Amino acid sequence: CEHSRFSLERAKVQSASKEEGYDDMDWTSDVETYPPWLRFHLGISRWELYNRKDPNLAQLTHYLATQRILGAVQKTGGTQLKLLISFPNHGQALLKPMKQSRDTETDVNLFYFSDFERHNAEISAFHLDRLLGFNRIPPVVGRLMNVTADIREKTTDHKVSRTFFTSPAGNVCFYGQCEYYCSTEHPVCGRPHLLEVSLAAILPDLSLAPRRSWRSPWRRSYSRTKLAQWEKNPNYCDSVKQTPPYSQGTRLVDLIDMAVLDFLMSNMDRHHYETFEKFGNETFLLHLDNGRAFGRHSQDEPSILAPLQQCCRIRRSTLLRLRLLALPDFRLSDVMRESLAQDPLADAAPLLSEAHLSALDRRLAAVLQVVHTCQEKHTDVIHDDLDRYDQDSLTDRNTKQ
Amino acid sequence: CEHSRFSLERAKVQSASKEEGYDDMDWTSDVETYPPWLRFHLGISRWELYNRKDPNLAQLTHYLATQRILGAVQKTGGTQLKLLISFPNHGQALLKPMKQSRDTETDVNLFYFSDFERHNAEISAFHLDRLLGFNRIPPVVGRLMNVTADIREKTTDHKVSRTFFTSPAGNVCFYGQCEYYCSTEHPVCGRPHLLEVSLAAILPDLSLAPRRSWRSPWRRSYSRTKLAQWEKNPNYCDSVKQTPPYSQGTRLVDLIDMAVLDFLMSNMDRHHYETFEKFGNETFLLHLDNGRAFGRHSQDEPSILAPLQQCCRIRRSTLLRLRLLALPDFRLSDVMRESLAQDPLADAAPLLSEAHLSALDRRLAAVLQVVHTCQEKHTDVIHDDLDRYDQDSLTDRNTKQ
Repeated sequence: CEHSRFSLERAKVQSASKEEGYDDMDWTSDVETYPPWLRFHLGISRWELYNRKDPNLAQLTHYLATQRILGAVQKTGGTQLKLLISFPNHGQALLKPMKQSRDTETDVNLFYFSDFERHNAEISAFHLDRLLGFNRIPPVVGRLMNVTADIREKTTDHKVSRTFFTSPAGNVCFYGQCEYYCSTEHPVCGRPHLLEVSLAAILPDLSLAPRRSWRSPWRRSYSRTKLAQWEKNPNYCDSVKQTPPYSQGTRLVDLIDMAVLDFLMSNMDRHHYETFEKFGNETFLLHLDNGRAFGRHSQDEPSILAPLQQCCRIRRSTLLRLRLLALPDFRLSDVMRESLAQDPLADAAPLLSEAHLSALDRRLAAVLQVVHTCQEKHTDVIHDDLDRYDQDSLTDRNTKQ
Repeated sequence: CEHSRFSLERAKVQSASKEEGYDDMDWTSDVETYPPWLRFHLGISRWELYNRKDPNLAQLTHYLATQRILGAVQKTGGTQLKLLISFPNHGQALLKPMKQSRDTETDVNLFYFSDFERHNAEISAFHLDRLLGFNRIPPVVGRLMNVTADIREKTTDHKVSRTFFTSPAGNVCFYGQCEYYCSTEHPVCGRPHLLEVSLAAILPDLSLAPRRSWRSPWRRSYSRTKLAQWEKNPNYCDSVKQTPPYSQGTRLVDLIDMAVLDFLMSNMDRHHYETFEKFGNETFLLHLDNGRAFGRHSQDEPSILAPLQQCCRIRRSTLLRLRLLALPDFRLSDVMRESLAQDPLADAAPLLSEAHLSALDRRLAAVLQVVHTCQEKHTDVIHDDLDRYDQDSLTDRNTKQ
């Protein structure tokens, strides 16, 4: 069975959770009574983070969007401010705050590594990844929070609390402690208390489900002047193809899936990706940390497609899905608009402007064009990951969408 | 005579300048052959920096706007990037670069001490100060520079040159070394080489004309939380009036002139002002450093008028000028628009948007309203600085403008 359950047996979860002090939870009850975050953890499989038909998905995002907030501490790692939020029932979420108006385009003179993170990029990336059929991004939902009641009065983290202040406009602001943009000059501010944030479901604790971090072979140089190897060598993929784990299994086409996702949303900041250690090399890639996507709609960044363009390989299932989303009836911009409209923050304003949505269509056409060019030169472009049954079910699923 | 010449005798200038290596200058020739910057220095009087009818004013700004650039080094002091530019004939100018689009309003959550400096604020402040009849700001002019040819290739300053880079958009950028906003995240960028800057005439060297820096009694706290004395005590002016140098002469009404200027252009950053030491306490106040003016047009900042509102004093000449500029035929916004249109940068786009210009009219009415309220309560509001002759000549001058 392809969808083998994530083998965090319930007993193991229970004992570990008890050690962590979760002993008020009723472990004798049925899975249906578990909180949504735990059902999400138990539903992780070798091939995807969640099943798109699982009703728990909606329950999880509803949980994140509505549960009372018990605590907020700064999350270390990364260069910009993010908070770890705790809920009743031991749920947690990763919070990224809105720092600029939703439609502010990245300054043309800023490098990808200096760009602000965007809360709506985190939300939109989750929707896009799901619509592409990947299911490799932990669920993310938008929420209008009260910075005073939900953060200032709840946090026990001095690094956060000591940076609160009231701005000249009378708004409650804070900035925390981090490498970039954590200063009075770059505050996170409520209006006067209300702040839009993204809340991402947290993955199982690393002690229960250790992960491995992989440096992307197509990582950028993170330098103002240096070029990466893949930018200088058009035959770069030849050596990647011969290097484990890319020389075997689906790792290379998984990476190309990720490149397609990143190109569509113009994310240049994919320096690493992660996998669950226990699944070894035959498993899906986690698409974590998408805050720098959707920074520019007026331009595309073809270099993000380098893995596809240089390797000329793509999963059949991905290609079929892309072709479907290029059809007038299933246009990517339309399904994204519809999907994003489900998010609680969409009531205030669309999470992606029309300019960003139509950039998706334009970029999708560009991906298909690269595949087409590949097919003119090579015969082994399509990686056939579908048997007859899968193809039927995919067609079935698509037309019902 | 009120307009006593600045007694930097020519001989003194000559000898000092020779010591500084200016010995290739023809000191035997007539004043008319001196470079404009030197004539500007020699024209400084006890009561004003320049005479508005002096034809050298136009020559000086033309000089700054067109002369070949010989060098550029970073100017120390202050918190943001500025450069000292050198021209042939030993002229110099203080350069402030354009860092954001001209109409970007200051973020409502930024404090006055975190605001960016604006090149168009420096230019506009000079025009406004002149139209108000103060003549207390060194002439400033806009210029479209080539960052590569005029700065990168000319600078000998390693602090500047080592920060040059080419941005993702292919623009030539740099950021220098300073306390705030000197980083890759806040670059100064050409398009791809052309950059708008303001160039301010430099005052006579401190060795020739030492200046005294005075802390403004109405200085803000420069703290996110603390209030200054004047913000807490409505009778604050009573103590200022009794404290030298404000207890004598025109210092208090000079300060109020400055407050009027600052309120009109919404400059909250007037922590100090300077005077020429040799003129003692009976002299005008220099209105230097206006880069944080004109940051917001949609709101006024009444606290800037505190000196006028708390002391209820104003020069008659200032009041007459303000009343004139409130008349339909001499409306401040109209004369500013016309005056700013003379600047070389106005060809590309107006230096102040219509929103900023109409804010000037609105704020002017607010100043007159404060004076009116003062006059209802006090009889000594008007400081009479005009004799009969002056009043005639003022009226004469105004109607001819």
